[in-house]
Amino acid sequence: MTTFDTRDFVPDPEKGARVAQDDRAHVFHSWSAQAQISPLPIAGASGSHFWDFEGKRYLDFSSQLVNVNIGYQHPKLVAAIQEAAARQCTIAPSFADESRSEAARMIAERAPGSLDKVFFTNGGAEATENAMRMAKLHTGRNKVLTTYRSYHGATAGSIAATGDPRRWANEPGVAGIVHFWGPYPYRSPFHSADAAQECERALQHLRETIMVEGAHTIAAIMLETVVGTNGILVPPEGYLAGVREICDEHGIVYIADEVMAGFGRCGEWFAVDHWGVVPDLICFAKGVNSGYVPLGGVVISAEIAATFDERVFPGGLTYSGHPLACASAVASMRIFDEEGILENVRKVADTVIAPRLAEIADKHPSVGEVRGLGFFWALDLVRDPETREPLVPYNASGPAAAPMTELAAACKAEGLWPFTHFNRTHVVPPCTTTAEEMAEGLDILDRALDVTDRHVTG
Amino acid sequence: MTTFDTRDFVPDPEKGARVAQDDRAHVFHSWSAQAQISPLPIAGASGSHFWDFEGKRYLDFSSQLVNVNIGYQHPKLVAAIQEAAARQCTIAPSFADESRSEAARMIAERAPGSLDKVFFTNGGAEATENAMRMAKLHTGRNKVLTTYRSYHGATAGSIAATGDPRRWANEPGVAGIVHFWGPYPYRSPFHSADAAQECERALQHLRETIMVEGAHTIAAIMLETVVGTNGILVPPEGYLAGVREICDEHGIVYIADEVMAGFGRCGEWFAVDHWGVVPDLICFAKGVNSGYVPLGGVVISAEIAATFDERVFPGGLTYSGHPLACASAVASMRIFDEEGILENVRKVADTVIAPRLAEIADKHPSVGEVRGLGFFWALDLVRDPETREPLVPYNASGPAAAPMTELAAACKAEGLWPFTHFNRTHVVPPCTTTAEEMAEGLDILDRALDVTDRHVTG
Repeated sequence: MTTFDTRDFVPDPEKGARVAQDDRAHVFHSWSAQAQISPLPIAGASGSHFWDFEGKRYLDFSSQLVNVNIGYQHPKLVAAIQEAAARQCTIAPSFADESRSEAARMIAERAPGSLDKVFFTNGGAEATENAMRMAKLHTGRNKVLTTYRSYHGATAGSIAATGDPRRWANEPGVAGIVHFWGPYPYRSPFHSADAAQECERALQHLRETIMVEGAHTIAAIMLETVVGTNGILVPPEGYLAGVREICDEHGIVYIADEVMAGFGRCGEWFAVDHWGVVPDLICFAKGVNSGYVPLGGVVISAEIAATFDERVFPGGLTYSGHPLACASAVASMRIFDEEGILENVRKVADTVIAPRLAEIADKHPSVGEVRGLGFFWALDLVRDPETREPLVPYNASGPAAAPMTELAAACKAEGLWPFTHFNRTHVVPPCTTTAEEMAEGLDILDRALDVTDRHVTG
Repeated sequence: MTTFDTRDFVPDPEKGARVAQDDRAHVFHSWSAQAQISPLPIAGASGSHFWDFEGKRYLDFSSQLVNVNIGYQHPKLVAAIQEAAARQCTIAPSFADESRSEAARMIAERAPGSLDKVFFTNGGAEATENAMRMAKLHTGRNKVLTTYRSYHGATAGSIAATGDPRRWANEPGVAGIVHFWGPYPYRSPFHSADAAQECERALQHLRETIMVEGAHTIAAIMLETVVGTNGILVPPEGYLAGVREICDEHGIVYIADEVMAGFGRCGEWFAVDHWGVVPDLICFAKGVNSGYVPLGGVVISAEIAATFDERVFPGGLTYSGHPLACASAVASMRIFDEEGILENVRKVADTVIAPRLAEIADKHPSVGEVRGLGFFWALDLVRDPETREPLVPYNASGPAAAPMTELAAACKAEGLWPFTHFNRTHVVPPCTTTAEEMAEGLDILDRALDVTDRHVTG
């Protein structure tokens, strides 16, 4: 594993103030009420850490938006981007390009089954948009089934597919999206007693939903292989294989949205590999190049690709297969291999995260459940461990979310940057995080959870 | 103007063959029937030229997809990207970042009126998606009016807004889009005698469309300031001011889509500056950094930004305000200033393009009209100069489009890469193209048009 030097930063609060001032005057931020935020100016980042202009340094348990899988400013990846910039920054999608060809080949080599062609986009939203487009045209059907408690992006098509509150303000949206319930053993929509029963009942629910929607009207089922922001919901054994079987039975395209779960997050190139399941389309972004240059895409099965052999695929974008972005993906995949980053994820998950989170769950009454795999874990926090009442209500904000805000503040005070969402805190650090860093971060989290324990009333 | 050395490339056909082979095996291309294309592998590019692995060099009259405004591999821009990569490749949208703050400030400084805040996206499609989202939430209305003969992107919302055949295979799309007719004096939808009458009648048509749709149901009118791929349709004097007035009268948001027309293409930072009109939202991408790193965005008026001061803006993306992309935009705007690139566009347009295209129009019966401004020109080709019958039918492909394919081949044979679309060829070179290069390219185009003259039957 490459080591990073993170200690040579000279604080520069004046520059930080200028950055903040321009930000507040001119930058319009995602998912925010603009007058209610004061974004922290970041001065630099390296490895598993980033720091502000005061010189305060954070161990990152968020990977930003769960995208910096390779860690910050990896020297080999930075060098590769610099070399690629000198060679060829941009060329239109209609040409062939060395970096584009190589990135596509390397992704296809890592993808399961016959998924051998890659349509590149700039990010995850365009990936799910184009996967749904391919599925509709391939099947001649118009509906797409997705789950509640899911996120698929924020363009018109991808936000309609999303099954969380970010969709609400964007409705009415695109017609033809049907939301169903996926498995979630800890808060079972099916009143299951255990994971095996949850799997069986979730598949039955999906079969019945297809029955009442009309199988012949359904183009695709799109699932996050492991649900990300909505809870790190790891599918029970047999669920994804069951979905695959249902899709085969009805000629429905199985789209795996691995924008967050893919490229190392689950300790595999593709999260479906963990269960040996082969979807028809896989959406990727984030981890493919850790967001050093915007990139996303869809890996396409031979059968679906063939649909567009003689028929025009009616989608595209100026930066499809962007040379600089593709070069960074090539370099990132190579570094993953050279430095054994997938192996690091598996090893540190097994030896540090899993045992330490089990201890934490035992110790803290506010921790209802810990779940996850790889570097992709959630602590489901509760007000009452018996009733499993969430520590804060669904989609809470402001005072109603205070226990979570306090938890985040307690982590930050000790130099840990957490990823909190609703009543959960996620453990989603860079895949290069060492065992020592992970242990340090989990120690901080352990202490911070005393804050949430105080809100336990059960 | 920085000079570029383009002569030191050593042909490498074997490498070109490998790039092509991986491309055909693994790259799924935009807007294409995959088995019917054989993308040309590009080995390198510099200034106004690019070349293939055989060493064949092309003077570029396309700027790829009308995005490489600063020319290829500009050494200062490449160096700026390399420096920015060493500093900070990526940070989440929720933080403040030096490059993001500076890019937003510099764009706001160049934007007209009170347009002082910037929401960054990865490209143009996400820009128009988010502009429409802002307009709907700002007004509480659901409809968006756009024109036929327009292109606004290929995600679900932006392709529904698009008024060209790329929309067709994606229908049924998003509800609430209404297409109307914009001005096009040469092929007037309103049977106008001249540009002044076209302006008057087009505004009347828009007013009547609003009347029958119900002004109180319309959130926005979205217009390409100069229609791009659908014909370089320069609005007649008074049209955009008239649209502005109509929007003000009815509380409708005026969205200027300047993804193609902005950042130098029309000889101005923003194309609306040419007419002194101030929209409420401006969408940008492409020329903002010439696509060296994927970037787009929306510049937002103070009034619309204020709508989201205390109310959450329900949109976002992982790479909003991407530091590396923003750094390249900062550098690009600086280089434009330092090298007088806007001035180059105006000068070469006035002294070379306009007079030379007038000559070409006089000489060639197949050239029905030339029109444009800046480095943004179209030759509208006809089968009959009297009836103005297009040289090839609307949306023609295959044998029906043969005259256009022959024209493109004739240009390429002489080392000019043209931008052809339907019955038109566009003159849209990098904004750094010199007077000499422009003259050379127009000479080649002049000779190539003998090919289309042979198809004139009138």
